[in-house]
Amino acid sequence: MAIALIITDRAVTVLQQQLIEALGQQVPVWSYPNIPQPEVVKMVILWKHPKGVLNQFPNLKLISSFGAGVEHILTDDSISKNIPVTRIVDDSLSRSMRNYVLMAVLNIQRQFRQLQKNQALGKWEKPAVVELPLRIGILGLGALGGRIASDLLTLGFEVSGYSRSPKNIKGLTSFTSDSKPLHDYLTQINLLVNILPRTPATEGMLNLDILSKMPKGSFLVNVGRGSQLVEADLLKAIQLGYIQEAWLDVFSQEPLPIDHPFWETEQIVITPHIASVTDQAEAARIIGDNYRRMETGQDLLFEVDREKGY
Amino acid sequence: MAIALIITDRAVTVLQQQLIEALGQQVPVWSYPNIPQPEVVKMVILWKHPKGVLNQFPNLKLISSFGAGVEHILTDDSISKNIPVTRIVDDSLSRSMRNYVLMAVLNIQRQFRQLQKNQALGKWEKPAVVELPLRIGILGLGALGGRIASDLLTLGFEVSGYSRSPKNIKGLTSFTSDSKPLHDYLTQINLLVNILPRTPATEGMLNLDILSKMPKGSFLVNVGRGSQLVEADLLKAIQLGYIQEAWLDVFSQEPLPIDHPFWETEQIVITPHIASVTDQAEAARIIGDNYRRMETGQDLLFEVDREKGY
Repeated sequence: MAIALIITDRAVTVLQQQLIEALGQQVPVWSYPNIPQPEVVKMVILWKHPKGVLNQFPNLKLISSFGAGVEHILTDDSISKNIPVTRIVDDSLSRSMRNYVLMAVLNIQRQFRQLQKNQALGKWEKPAVVELPLRIGILGLGALGGRIASDLLTLGFEVSGYSRSPKNIKGLTSFTSDSKPLHDYLTQINLLVNILPRTPATEGMLNLDILSKMPKGSFLVNVGRGSQLVEADLLKAIQLGYIQEAWLDVFSQEPLPIDHPFWETEQIVITPHIASVTDQAEAARIIGDNYRRMETGQDLLFEVDREKGY
Repeated sequence: MAIALIITDRAVTVLQQQLIEALGQQVPVWSYPNIPQPEVVKMVILWKHPKGVLNQFPNLKLISSFGAGVEHILTDDSISKNIPVTRIVDDSLSRSMRNYVLMAVLNIQRQFRQLQKNQALGKWEKPAVVELPLRIGILGLGALGGRIASDLLTLGFEVSGYSRSPKNIKGLTSFTSDSKPLHDYLTQINLLVNILPRTPATEGMLNLDILSKMPKGSFLVNVGRGSQLVEADLLKAIQLGYIQEAWLDVFSQEPLPIDHPFWETEQIVITPHIASVTDQAEAARIIGDNYRRMETGQDLLFEVDREKGY
């Protein structure tokens, strides 16, 4: 009985120590590639894992993502479909995502980038409209999107939401494809926040056809997945005036290639995939808890539905 | 019985129309300098008024500021001290102030200006710390400061407050000069939001002695009054490393003079006094209500205590 951390893009010392503290010395926690006895590993934590790496663990009982996303697990066909998959939904993760979206919304509302340009020119100029009137639409109302919608409402913003299945979020007007086609929904908002999970149905969903349904001069914030946005179509939507400013934290290829046209596009704000960050101490609590639940046969926390893809 | 609007820095058509609608045609609402019968004016609304202008109104019963601040009224010694003074405390004003401070806090937390510099250089670089750990202190806990503190708390930030008189804001740890000297208080925060009212006691209060009590690398957001900050001392505090970044919306002279050293200071964000904006429709409701209260001898809304200065 042991846990293997297969997380290749950062140091995970804190996670490792916290798990050892939570589970005790009788459950070794190994960090890839130093896995002395693969045959005793019952649980793995995966983030940017090498494909096929799980073949060395014959007694695996549980796979956890190290984040909210699980597409790296569900799309790896070398992984058995019979092992349950869980993910991390922790408060710090949804709070930091909410903070990022809120920063984007407030900067857009107050035209902060224009204020900074004025400052660089030594120009004292009050904008004609100090706060832009925003009608915000949240696309995707899961654990993260729901919290964003709800907190923006509390702060007094005009917000609505759109999701696959009906949601009941206090005070929020929301729609599903059954109640309103996405095309129609988009005509009534001027700032779209995309936070859909990555599934085959959402790939390439934000194309020119969709983006051009919003009124001219609209705004886009993408904190979902890079592959959900057709990047060439965003450039067209900007050229045609549909999108006035886009905040992008995720891209189809990361790091964003040096020669990518986004770098040169004035209307695009690029951030290096930092909207939400998994807190290692909080992740350790959820992972440790799920390890115990697996051992004692209890229901797992945040288990993924393979059909839905999240 | 008439109202005179003496507001010299903007068009006030909306305010004028809404007041006429609220009070009916029997109460003329005149906009300076077109005041046909000064002797029937019972109430004036003042913002950036010419000194001595009130001498022409012999039957004045009530003076209202057009904003939250009243120093332009209390410091004009040509105005009789026997006429009650009221101010505008409306929800849109405190909400826009809260939004501005929240924008500053989130941009600081996420180091947004550094991210923008990286983008300009085509650099994809995740910061070592994605969200800076902030300990926010709100100096001034009136209608505006209290709402800022309370909303930041709700959003999960670490916040405390400091004010002249004790306040009871749910969940907020706050101090007064009786319970803790300001010097001591400042050692425990690293982001100071100043939103004190302008009174003789707060003039020049933010000097080097005060700013250097915060730990090195701290942050300052000034949305109070420009004259509360000793501007040369802020430059010293930046040079000495006490202040890492300052967001300033108010200045001792506005517009900020072209040759002011702030324009050239990398660590300062300059915005042209736009943190909060009085909504004319909401202001009209409060002013109309106070006009009726004066006529019927009821208690006034948001009456100013001349001793306190707000």
